[in-house]
Parts: sequence; C-alpha cells; structure tokens
Amino acid sequence: MSTVIVEVMPKPEILDPQGKAILGALSRTGHTGIASVRMGKRFEVTLDHEATPEDLDQIRSIAAEVFSNPVIEDVVSVTAEDAQ
Amino acid sequence: MSTVIVEVMPKPEILDPQGKAILGALSRTGHTGIASVRMGKRFEVTLDHEATPEDLDQIRSIAAEVFSNPVIEDVVSVTAEDAQ
Repeated sequence: MSTVIVEVMPKPEILDPQGKAILGALSRTGHTGIASVRMGKRFEVTLDHEATPEDLDQIRSIAAEVFSNPVIEDVVSVTAEDAQ
Repeated sequence: MSTVIVEVMPKPEILDPQGKAILGALSRTGHTGIASVRMGKRFEVTLDHEATPEDLDQIRSIAAEVFSNPVIEDVVSVTAEDAQ
C-alpha cells in the first residue's frame, strides 16, 4: 500500500469566493496581518501496491482530467507519501 | 510576504462520500490498482510580512477553529512555504 497526495488550487487569476469569505471572517474576528486566503483541494489516493513511476504518471493524468477543472484550477503537486 | 499552507482531511473513521464517488468514477473508467480516494482541503494563507513562529501558532489555532470542523476533520499540516 502506498499513498499519493494530489493538490489542486484555483488558478491565480481566478477569483476565489470561498477564500475571500474566509478572509472577511478572519478580519472581522480580529486576525490581522493576513493578506489573502485561497482554498483548494487535497486528495489522498491510496494504491493497493507500492507506487511506481508509472503509477505517478497515471495519477498525474487522472489529476488533470478528474480531480481538477483545467479551466479554473491548477494541479499544484502530485507526490508519493512514504510507504506504509 | 510569505505563504503558509494548511491541509485539512476528513478524519479516517468518517465516511468520505466525495472520495467514494471519485473512486467509483475511476474504476468505471478503467483505472485499476486504486484502493481508496479521500478528498480534503488545502488553504494558502498569504501574510503581509515574513511568517514568524507566533504567526504559525496563530494560523494553527485558526486552522483548528475556522478552516476545519473538528468533529469530522483533522488539520493534517500547517507549514510555511519558502518566502517569496
């Protein structure tokens, strides 16, 4: 078993209303010094075997096609976690 | 300016219907070897100054109170990214 972590964030040029709402809530509750908050997604993909470089390539293509909407999101990283 | 990354995942004992739906879609589209998919959240918090250890403590408490629902989610990590 091994786990691959995929991270997806809204593209920098796309407005992130969830992040804006969180930033507003933080400044209303007195948290200062925060310039922006952006919210994305994190996936843990557990394989039933040790991750090979081919698995990572397959998961990279899944990340681009299934986990993210390429119009508004970027896949930030695809990394294998330590084997369990 | 510096950025702090906060990662939040559903607790292991909590059912993750989004992850289950993605796993079902992947197996229907012929992706084999994947045992499970879990979906969580990733936040990029940009500060208007360099992150200090006190900032990280503050963001850890924000992560526990605002970014996550402690009943169903765990804060997996709070880490400062390289200064920009």
